[in-house]
Amino acid sequence: MSTSILRGWLQAAEADWLVLRTAQGELKIQLPDDASVRAGLADITPESSVICEVEQGGQGEEGGQESCPVLCRLTLCHPSEPFPLDPGKDYSRDLSVRHLWLRQPKAGHILRARHKILKAIREALEEHGFIGVQTPLTTQAACVCSGSVFEIPFYDQKAALNQSPWMYVDCLVNSGVDKAYAVMPSFRKEQEPTPSHLSEIWHIQCDQAWFDQEESMAFEENLVSAVVERVLDDCAAELAFLGRDVAELERVKPPFERLSYDRAVEMITEAGHRIRWGEDIDSDAQRVLSGFFDKPFFLVEPPYETANFFFNRNPERPEVAMVHDLYVPGCGEIIGGGERASDIELLYENLLHFGHLPEDYEWYLDGKKYGPIPHTGFNFGFDRFTMWLLGLEDIRQGVPFPRVPHTAPRP
Amino acid sequence: MSTSILRGWLQAAEADWLVLRTAQGELKIQLPDDASVRAGLADITPESSVICEVEQGGQGEEGGQESCPVLCRLTLCHPSEPFPLDPGKDYSRDLSVRHLWLRQPKAGHILRARHKILKAIREALEEHGFIGVQTPLTTQAACVCSGSVFEIPFYDQKAALNQSPWMYVDCLVNSGVDKAYAVMPSFRKEQEPTPSHLSEIWHIQCDQAWFDQEESMAFEENLVSAVVERVLDDCAAELAFLGRDVAELERVKPPFERLSYDRAVEMITEAGHRIRWGEDIDSDAQRVLSGFFDKPFFLVEPPYETANFFFNRNPERPEVAMVHDLYVPGCGEIIGGGERASDIELLYENLLHFGHLPEDYEWYLDGKKYGPIPHTGFNFGFDRFTMWLLGLEDIRQGVPFPRVPHTAPRP
Repeated sequence: MSTSILRGWLQAAEADWLVLRTAQGELKIQLPDDASVRAGLADITPESSVICEVEQGGQGEEGGQESCPVLCRLTLCHPSEPFPLDPGKDYSRDLSVRHLWLRQPKAGHILRARHKILKAIREALEEHGFIGVQTPLTTQAACVCSGSVFEIPFYDQKAALNQSPWMYVDCLVNSGVDKAYAVMPSFRKEQEPTPSHLSEIWHIQCDQAWFDQEESMAFEENLVSAVVERVLDDCAAELAFLGRDVAELERVKPPFERLSYDRAVEMITEAGHRIRWGEDIDSDAQRVLSGFFDKPFFLVEPPYETANFFFNRNPERPEVAMVHDLYVPGCGEIIGGGERASDIELLYENLLHFGHLPEDYEWYLDGKKYGPIPHTGFNFGFDRFTMWLLGLEDIRQGVPFPRVPHTAPRP
Repeated sequence: MSTSILRGWLQAAEADWLVLRTAQGELKIQLPDDASVRAGLADITPESSVICEVEQGGQGEEGGQESCPVLCRLTLCHPSEPFPLDPGKDYSRDLSVRHLWLRQPKAGHILRARHKILKAIREALEEHGFIGVQTPLTTQAACVCSGSVFEIPFYDQKAALNQSPWMYVDCLVNSGVDKAYAVMPSFRKEQEPTPSHLSEIWHIQCDQAWFDQEESMAFEENLVSAVVERVLDDCAAELAFLGRDVAELERVKPPFERLSYDRAVEMITEAGHRIRWGEDIDSDAQRVLSGFFDKPFFLVEPPYETANFFFNRNPERPEVAMVHDLYVPGCGEIIGGGERASDIELLYENLLHFGHLPEDYEWYLDGKKYGPIPHTGFNFGFDRFTMWLLGLEDIRQGVPFPRVPHTAPRP
């Protein structure tokens, strides 16, 4: 027998038990026969913070459960007012009580899993020689799509909140960093709240010098598979708590199908859905496509018109872009990437074509004057990847303090 | 003899040598006698991207240098226009050419070191059971000091760019995460550009449940010492390149002095500098104090009036706060922390006292109604720590794309 201290929040007290919520989860503690120990308990409200001195029984027999700790003394730290959330109800999509939901066991499991997922991604990248960098959030102009930018005053300048770290990571790789990744928040002024969009997102921009489209896809399928495999190990308890069907995750192994946009249009049409070559694959069409796959797949070489200004054209088929997106069935796009254009004339044309002002991108274009290199970049949507791995219905469940369109930024 | 490929940017070509800048640094490559190989070189401008097929000589004798690779074939990838930076000049403080400075060897060394410093911090925290979290950047109001907040429109709401993740990390720890850290950018609308301030900063907020001020300081001095020790090993090449005096870093071992604010005021006064009890220790006074120490030191229990609204008072001396700052000689404060107030009445009073609107903090106060716990938090200034470790004169040298007051946010 040894005595130890457990700290946490009282959840419930029964005749012979109390339940303590700690950082490791909920623990059952046995009450002793001692009436003086039990006496104090009656007045302590749930969610009060308490310090429990317990006697830990010896280990159970080989392979068995450790026996339940027995309470020796309980000290009230701070009492709780009546806690407003119903312990049987799931508040994970109700942002008005987000700061209180964080106390529920589901939130704790999600937060721990989110941490382990990011750690797995980071370590996988670093094993391959990537260095982590930080990029700025106040910037000059939209770098993804003009419609979704938050404009802000920056001293007496008009500025924008950055939509993606890609331009900065591109510049670093084009300057000699070779392989760089940036785990960054970005801002998207989305107009519609959807289950897979937020106004503030976390993503990981990964650029590699001297890589081409196929090398990048091979890297990404290995990265995603390695991370999924590690998460299956490291987050087994969290996946079980959340009721995630792990069979779907166990199928995630390379290679992933490379589905051409051309073939995708045929498949969508054959399935009776209307789409014309040249159009974006909308969420309905994505759902149709997803039905054909039971693991992640790449959609490659979309029409140049639907791509962003900074990608190369396919030299043999200039109407398509050297771009790929990685889709996961049921969740949509988690990675978008491709070959960076290094031809300054093409970039200039593209900026005009896509409605940007070239003078806002002067420093970026400038960098391409001095021996640009072939390179690829991909953007890994961390919040959406977390949502998919954990089998959440809504992206906001996986983010501790989500920001959604048209909703006050609180808590 | 074996053949390999080296990719990078041509720096210089001499009669018998060329210098190639790669992600690993500058490499000297020997030219062969073959005139056809040499012929193409004359027309290639510095900073052009090239691919060199080289024959790598065998290893030199035991302990000796590997012999220099010999060029077999050079392929021009993309030519460079005349590069505008003088290779002999240091542009690390000139933001107008930041995107080009990143190609200079000093920038590469700083970026690699910055990556390794953050990795060392992260791993040290995780060894102690911290989990990493992400916090939002759009928020309701100032959480540090009203004067330095960027106000922004968030859809049709008035919002602010977050000044510190502390409120969110506090909420998570108070909800049951136990030990949480957030590596985050924050925004400070500083009015004066100084060598140690930026408008966008990166820092690491670390909170620990059930800790008190002394436990937190003991943790911090061990953390800082462990990171410094690891950086001395991992970044030896970078420190040498930057000419950092490592003797100063080698002295960084626990314990660090705990200097009370009271004693600090006496020491500053004895040194002939004017300060009155109750005043902030300004940068001149900090310099005076720093002269007494040859390694980092804590300044503890400052006047409550100079602390922030979320700290506890010393119960035995309510005129001082349970706060500590960690100073490094010559660089200023790199950590600020203390015991979080959990008394909702005190917090409410403090908010009013420090000129905040309590309704902007409602969700935060709300969280303290339900069994708050004693806990400490500290904020580790990553940009400033990097500046000090690398011996930089200006904080902007250590940040790839710094943002400074009253300067357009570009590149």
